[in-house]
Amino acid sequence: MNFLSDTTAPAHPALIDAIAAANRDFAPSYGADPLTAKVEARLKAIFETDLKLVFAVSGTASNSLALSVLCPPHGAILCHDEAHIHRDERGAPEFFTGGGKLIPLKGDHAKIDLDELDRALGEIPEGFVHTSPVRALSLSNLSESGTAYAPGEVAERAGRLKGRPAFVHMDGARFANALVTLGCSPAELTWKAGIDTLCFGATKNGALGAEAVILFPSVMDRFEELQIRQKRAGHMAPKMRFMAAQFDAWLSDDLWLALAGTANARARALANGFASKEGAEVLHPVDGNEIFVRLSEPRAAQLREAGAQFYQWPDGSARFVTSWCTTETEISDALAAL
Amino acid sequence: MNFLSDTTAPAHPALIDAIAAANRDFAPSYGADPLTAKVEARLKAIFETDLKLVFAVSGTASNSLALSVLCPPHGAILCHDEAHIHRDERGAPEFFTGGGKLIPLKGDHAKIDLDELDRALGEIPEGFVHTSPVRALSLSNLSESGTAYAPGEVAERAGRLKGRPAFVHMDGARFANALVTLGCSPAELTWKAGIDTLCFGATKNGALGAEAVILFPSVMDRFEELQIRQKRAGHMAPKMRFMAAQFDAWLSDDLWLALAGTANARARALANGFASKEGAEVLHPVDGNEIFVRLSEPRAAQLREAGAQFYQWPDGSARFVTSWCTTETEISDALAAL
Amino acid sequence: MNFLSDTTAPAHPALIDAIAAANRDFAPSYGADPLTAKVEARLKAIFETDLKLVFAVSGTASNSLALSVLCPPHGAILCHDEAHIHRDERGAPEFFTGGGKLIPLKGDHAKIDLDELDRALGEIPEGFVHTSPVRALSLSNLSESGTAYAPGEVAERAGRLKGRPAFVHMDGARFANALVTLGCSPAELTWKAGIDTLCFGATKNGALGAEAVILFPSVMDRFEELQIRQKRAGHMAPKMRFMAAQFDAWLSDDLWLALAGTANARARALANGFASKEGAEVLHPVDGNEIFVRLSEPRAAQLREAGAQFYQWPDGSARFVTSWCTTETEISDALAAL
Amino acid sequence: MNFLSDTTAPAHPALIDAIAAANRDFAPSYGADPLTAKVEARLKAIFETDLKLVFAVSGTASNSLALSVLCPPHGAILCHDEAHIHRDERGAPEFFTGGGKLIPLKGDHAKIDLDELDRALGEIPEGFVHTSPVRALSLSNLSESGTAYAPGEVAERAGRLKGRPAFVHMDGARFANALVTLGCSPAELTWKAGIDTLCFGATKNGALGAEAVILFPSVMDRFEELQIRQKRAGHMAPKMRFMAAQFDAWLSDDLWLALAGTANARARALANGFASKEGAEVLHPVDGNEIFVRLSEPRAAQLREAGAQFYQWPDGSARFVTSWCTTETEISDALAAL
Repeated sequence: MNFLSDTTAPAHPALIDAIAAANRDFAPSYGADPLTAKVEARLKAIFETDLKLVFAVSGTASNSLALSVLCPPHGAILCHDEAHIHRDERGAPEFFTGGGKLIPLKGDHAKIDLDELDRALGEIPEGFVHTSPVRALSLSNLSESGTAYAPGEVAERAGRLKGRPAFVHMDGARFANALVTLGCSPAELTWKAGIDTLCFGATKNGALGAEAVILFPSVMDRFEELQIRQKRAGHMAPKMRFMAAQFDAWLSDDLWLALAGTANARARALANGFASKEGAEVLHPVDGNEIFVRLSEPRAAQLREAGAQFYQWPDGSARFVTSWCTTETEISDALAAL
Repeated sequence: MNFLSDTTAPAHPALIDAIAAANRDFAPSYGADPLTAKVEARLKAIFETDLKLVFAVSGTASNSLALSVLCPPHGAILCHDEAHIHRDERGAPEFFTGGGKLIPLKGDHAKIDLDELDRALGEIPEGFVHTSPVRALSLSNLSESGTAYAPGEVAERAGRLKGRPAFVHMDGARFANALVTLGCSPAELTWKAGIDTLCFGATKNGALGAEAVILFPSVMDRFEELQIRQKRAGHMAPKMRFMAAQFDAWLSDDLWLALAGTANARARALANGFASKEGAEVLHPVDGNEIFVRLSEPRAAQLREAGAQFYQWPDGSARFVTSWCTTETEISDALAAL
Repeated sequence: MNFLSDTTAPAHPALIDAIAAANRDFAPSYGADPLTAKVEARLKAIFETDLKLVFAVSGTASNSLALSVLCPPHGAILCHDEAHIHRDERGAPEFFTGGGKLIPLKGDHAKIDLDELDRALGEIPEGFVHTSPVRALSLSNLSESGTAYAPGEVAERAGRLKGRPAFVHMDGARFANALVTLGCSPAELTWKAGIDTLCFGATKNGALGAEAVILFPSVMDRFEELQIRQKRAGHMAPKMRFMAAQFDAWLSDDLWLALAGTANARARALANGFASKEGAEVLHPVDGNEIFVRLSEPRAAQLREAGAQFYQWPDGSARFVTSWCTTETEISDALAAL
Repeated sequence: MNFLSDTTAPAHPALIDAIAAANRDFAPSYGADPLTAKVEARLKAIFETDLKLVFAVSGTASNSLALSVLCPPHGAILCHDEAHIHRDERGAPEFFTGGGKLIPLKGDHAKIDLDELDRALGEIPEGFVHTSPVRALSLSNLSESGTAYAPGEVAERAGRLKGRPAFVHMDGARFANALVTLGCSPAELTWKAGIDTLCFGATKNGALGAEAVILFPSVMDRFEELQIRQKRAGHMAPKMRFMAAQFDAWLSDDLWLALAGTANARARALANGFASKEGAEVLHPVDGNEIFVRLSEPRAAQLREAGAQFYQWPDGSARFVTSWCTTETEISDALAAL
């Protein structure tokens, strides 16, 4: 009953098989291999558009690489106050952008409030030499509270940047989980809603370690710079085929959606169980594979005694994360403990 | 007959098996897993000393991470003019150090000349606010010309920094190849010769993608900062166990030495073959798995027709790189073409 | 009737005389001149402590230089959401610190609220590799709303950092104005209240362009690094004696206090005048030489017609800044217009 | 007999008078004042072209600001191995460019050798992701050895960058001295010879502290970014009029040329005197106000006893710098001592 994080889960065996299969012969280094090309083709089909991509070994890396081609050192990035890029990446976006400024915004359930966004945009002028202008907006989908922005919510926020030389980034470390819940297409949740670049995470959903920075057509002219920055940051792995192999298997036969679907279903079941118990208040909509629940001391103790592992969150709640390999038994065992 | 680069070679199957084995269950993220601890123990035994380490996905990353804890933004790093950190990493050391200055030195066969080192040290004062003082010396072993520094040569150069608050870094992307040729112990080639930090590369010698930054006792107090910088640069991979698994298998039963031994033997055989042919002048001592040879046009054509792939080097020579999986037949076929 | 900014005012003639006097002969460059030493001695007497200092040509430079020796690239700086370092310096603190993170806090009248400070400190752990820890707190005195922190208010906030390896910076672009109103000693408002470094501004109070970064004993061990960073940022002016000359004259015979006293008195008179008029609501305590007033349209028009110049502030208020050379007549003329 | 540096000399009194005159009234801040506009107009006339400029307080600042709008973090700057930007600015160009790489080239008398330049350009490919491409060439005129590049020499070197997206910077800390000796027009020595940006120094030639970064038409589209970087680096002084006043007086009635002419004449006289003495070998052509001379011990002692102050240079020579206020008597006294 490990609900600590989806990064503690093993990888899906199909991805390891794919790595073994990719190991048969020599292959060009640094992303010039055929598997990388195959993944690019798969992603174009899935997202129904032209696009460019690079791989990275962590979400921190992919977010920062993406932001570094959107925001100059003297620009600002709007994000939610609880965003991973602001709270959990040790200043990586500042490092990669060369000192770009993150401006944190409030909003319930870790989704940026529209009024807050309007207020911030109203306060930050364009073309005033003393002030860092807004060059990017970052939306996390799933958010840090496990909630999803629907396509309309994304479009509403992205639309607020109209008329500024600014771009919209989506931190999609758990993009698959959001997508499955929302039931929309990948295109609808991204470029059709105004997203310029997506950090598409596989690691938390069955990969060994593989993230993709996807540039949609609106920012594809920055691909060369993205590659340069990937190299310069040490993220252009020599044997890139092994990251490509993971993505190839993961995207094959909708495996990625199936894995996210399982994780989401487990989270939903656990949340439903909590909802029927006293002393276990679910704090946010459960739109993916994360549940934040305010547990009474006895409830928390019952769960721990039953062997459930979970993190205490800074706001006092308990965080439960399910993964592609969380079993129905684990959920029922956890709930039985209450 | 792919002699393009050891990064185009496949990984050794034992490492893929190890990854599969490491995938059985949940494991702590970010390097807190038992396999990482096991690798640390193995390395302590191999290097006969206490040490600390972090993993990274590329040599560019490991070199830059190491240098960033040795050299402040306002310091300088001495290296050979042809060093990978100066020529082939797109300014990554400058990026990671926050603008540290690389000062390139000359020397035959890509090894830093002692007189050049003395001259540079003589020109750069300590404690003068206008000048970036020397804070690190970087030695590549194997060098960019495929030559090795013997322990005495390392010690001689490292000793020149005595009395300065400066440290010595070894770029060991092909450390195993150098070691096997030199026949000394890992300790003798590193900390006993004055090396403070080693970037120990496995990727070019049988791994899928795994490098270790090793801090020897003289700089172990910088481990916390190294971890911080690893995180901040996006190199703290969530599922670190899969890098650890590679190193664990690679270090097991001296596999790493056996693989390097094979690559070196193939290179030696190829170099010997070249030496007996007209129109094929080997330019540097072959101390590892790289051969730089000045080929006459007809010789180059013969090799290409026989299916040999190799890079034309900026100095006009042809570079041949062997790997753990280069076969004796490939060598004899190549030589037969001449 | 120029109330736009104290940076549009001329310098006090005594400072220009001092520059002329300092020009008589050759003098050592880069701060090794006798006038710089004399200013250091003056400041030690004024602040009743040992200290170290460097000069800079702007408040943006002095703030960023100070912060860059307190906060590493991977640390965080707490400041008010409206602080000059966060809103008006084009990301200079991020630039000078190498990507340090500014975390904005709320509080009435541009003074950091204690509960907000406690909340932020509670949310940001020490020793967690993923999160930028607090390494500095910055207080602006005067604040961006023209209000002053009294010594007790400074001490209360500074005390909250106890037990962390963190320091307290005071942006004293209008330090003299705050000091004169508070009636305390320079020592009481700074190091005795827990301030580690003060950016002591003369430019807005009669200088041509001279700011001093003062390190109090708690951080004097960082002086060498401060000089290095001053040089590296191009702020070690060759003929430093001309900045020293300004400070020397400004500090002589309490001129700096007299100038601030005049500016404050004019602001007080203007604020009192506003207070007695309808349609002119003063929004913050007037603790120095800045007044923020919500003007009705007719009131604003009356003032403009009478020749008063002032800025419209982002919050909708009008800002009036008085200076050492604002006359009583200007104040009475402005008020007469209403 | 102070021959230490032209930065130890006083300012010309006309510049102090100009500062006093500029102090009469209120003036817009941050460069929006009429004097700054007047200087821009003067410079357009002097350089016979449209241009843009910002001021800075030091040569280190102006060089780094200029380079930072030419070279991205992942680019390289070619310069002479002894260039001030490489040896004497504590890594400021790396800081301002965000980690750009300086590549030092050899050449006699501190002027870049054409063959060296060709070799370097030949070794550094365009469009190869692993290598920092050349984005700028920096020429110092006067060079670090006090020699001048004639317009043809500038053009020859600048022309080598044709076909690359690269620009040419001139470090003109002693531009006036070079110009006077060469007898050409400012335009001929700069944009007509392929210079894109000139750091035009007044400080060493009679100013209190004023340098101008001039963008010629080929890079004028970078002016907004230059202003942003000037602000972000703390070099947008609030009361900019006082820098403008210095330049205005200095450029008026060819004062700048007269001052440089005097300094050059004194240097020439001193060099001629040295040339006729044994034990005093002048090492480089004296094209401006600097003389590098290899002095025998007795010669050095004679000069020191006579009261001459000069620096011992790293190459073992003695450096003598004359200034606008060096007198004929000082020269004859110095020579009389030999």
